[in-house]
Amino acid sequence: MSTFVNRQILLTSRPAAEARADNFTLVEAPVPVLTDGQVLVRNHYLSLDPYMRGRMNDSKSYAQPQPLNAVMQGGTVGEIVDSKNGQFQPGDKVVGMGGWQEYAVVDATQRGVLRKVDTAKIPLPAYLGAVGMPGVTAWYGLVKLINPKAGETVVVSAASGAVGGAVGQLAKVRGARVVGIAGGPDKCRQVVEELGFDACVDYKAFAGLKELSAALKAACPKGIDGYFENVGGVILDAVMQNANAFSRIALCGMISGYDGAPIPMAAPQLLLVNRMKLEGFIVSEHMEVWPDALGELGTLVATGQLKYRETIAEGLASAPEAFIGLLKGRNFGKQLVKLV
Amino acid sequence: MSTFVNRQILLTSRPAAEARADNFTLVEAPVPVLTDGQVLVRNHYLSLDPYMRGRMNDSKSYAQPQPLNAVMQGGTVGEIVDSKNGQFQPGDKVVGMGGWQEYAVVDATQRGVLRKVDTAKIPLPAYLGAVGMPGVTAWYGLVKLINPKAGETVVVSAASGAVGGAVGQLAKVRGARVVGIAGGPDKCRQVVEELGFDACVDYKAFAGLKELSAALKAACPKGIDGYFENVGGVILDAVMQNANAFSRIALCGMISGYDGAPIPMAAPQLLLVNRMKLEGFIVSEHMEVWPDALGELGTLVATGQLKYRETIAEGLASAPEAFIGLLKGRNFGKQLVKLV
Repeated sequence: MSTFVNRQILLTSRPAAEARADNFTLVEAPVPVLTDGQVLVRNHYLSLDPYMRGRMNDSKSYAQPQPLNAVMQGGTVGEIVDSKNGQFQPGDKVVGMGGWQEYAVVDATQRGVLRKVDTAKIPLPAYLGAVGMPGVTAWYGLVKLINPKAGETVVVSAASGAVGGAVGQLAKVRGARVVGIAGGPDKCRQVVEELGFDACVDYKAFAGLKELSAALKAACPKGIDGYFENVGGVILDAVMQNANAFSRIALCGMISGYDGAPIPMAAPQLLLVNRMKLEGFIVSEHMEVWPDALGELGTLVATGQLKYRETIAEGLASAPEAFIGLLKGRNFGKQLVKLV
Repeated sequence: MSTFVNRQILLTSRPAAEARADNFTLVEAPVPVLTDGQVLVRNHYLSLDPYMRGRMNDSKSYAQPQPLNAVMQGGTVGEIVDSKNGQFQPGDKVVGMGGWQEYAVVDATQRGVLRKVDTAKIPLPAYLGAVGMPGVTAWYGLVKLINPKAGETVVVSAASGAVGGAVGQLAKVRGARVVGIAGGPDKCRQVVEELGFDACVDYKAFAGLKELSAALKAACPKGIDGYFENVGGVILDAVMQNANAFSRIALCGMISGYDGAPIPMAAPQLLLVNRMKLEGFIVSEHMEVWPDALGELGTLVATGQLKYRETIAEGLASAPEAFIGLLKGRNFGKQLVKLV
């Protein structure tokens, strides 16, 4: 097995402001011989996620920084191609954290690092999206933090993304009115027509806070009871201007501020005036909900009730540009890199 | 009884920016004859509270605006001097919402508008402070929202105020390290020496966010796990820079922004990075906790374990200036107006 050449993408410099393709370097390395307990996984798809941008900085955040000159870490799905571990056989489909490389050697004796998945009713890449980390992220924020009642209005930003799309559909299942915020008419059309949201506000169509707030008010005539935040900045300010008493904000991401200076919250007094509850979370710290969440998400996907789109880049070398496109909002739905 | 002349203070104009004494007018009015179910209360003390400033504006807030040309509403303690209600006898000491006037006619058939209190072990004005609305406010935010564990660090702003002082002492009872923020060396000394806080940061001694944040860091070497917010603005920003993962903010007031333009939150992304929970509340919406809260507060006051200070203005006519002084932080502890 040691004759395999593994292609890998390393983070070789940290961005000064925006992430750039030349922060990454593609290298080749031999695949080491397996030792007892290890398996060799051929990665079929890489997951690209906004959280990775924060980890590229060498600053305090909720995760350790991505080490320099090491393989970019990230979620993957793939197939076991060699095994020195009785729990995994060649041909098994698995989801794990294989990173930006074609092959991953994994010590599968550690509980939870690799999970076998069933692809009979659920396509393999869905385990990186609707039935994976983004889906559980949506589920946790919506179900555990926003907890919408039937008839309430739930808003989600980055609504056409992997997380946002799932948030809205899970909220619809619970009887809420669901309004997305997305960038551009194509995304907004998809959110309404494909994903079944009640409305979608194209934030790029409005000049500033006042106009965006008015558009949200028109889309949410009864105000906003729950908000799933992926973006921050002026979008958060506009939502807060339309927030109802006792509304809840699940704070999942603030991608608008990832590249540079923090973006202030214009009117924090609204949190008090409206007796709002706001909570930041990272889904990997709530492993206790994963079984329930994956149960519902898997059932909804397998029965066609939870829809999602994927944007698929081809080949390992495309990962840096695809990642930068994700940060700029060029993707529809889940951004993947297809290797096989 | 109709020969009584009642002196009253009305709100006769709304402030353009800072509240001013000439927003109020002192008038005289006859006390009406009681009808069945009513009682006449002679107000002994008026409670002055920061929330009243918000109600002076004619804008959306959590409470209805104070009506113009009507008696300023507010909490009072007093004594029944006449009664056409079998539940109350002359001589009974009561707490209620008597407003800024010497006598209040109260329809005591409405449940909860007047509450008889026992002054054997607890002085009458304490029912407007440590064993009243401010005490329950402190209790709700600390116990229900911050819920500190022994060894955690709890910070409270406006620490020498009626609410802040109770927050810190309730947190000490629960084994927390308690750090106050107050304006000036005298208040800070009182907070530490009289109220038993572990430390107090004088925000007036620091030029800006960076310096204030460094002072808080020195006072909270293990970071901040819980924050009870009465002030907002740069103080909130400085606390957030020192917040630990999974810290909680109970948002009770933002007095720094009451007079004018809202003050932005500089770095809302810290709420995400630190997976913080922030909740705005108004204690009057949580009546279910009042019995438990008043039980603990009454016991602590009666046994001398909960200390408090009062700043007492004399006579009804002093109420406007005393209220303005409260908004400027001139009071120590609970600001009262003594009428009898």
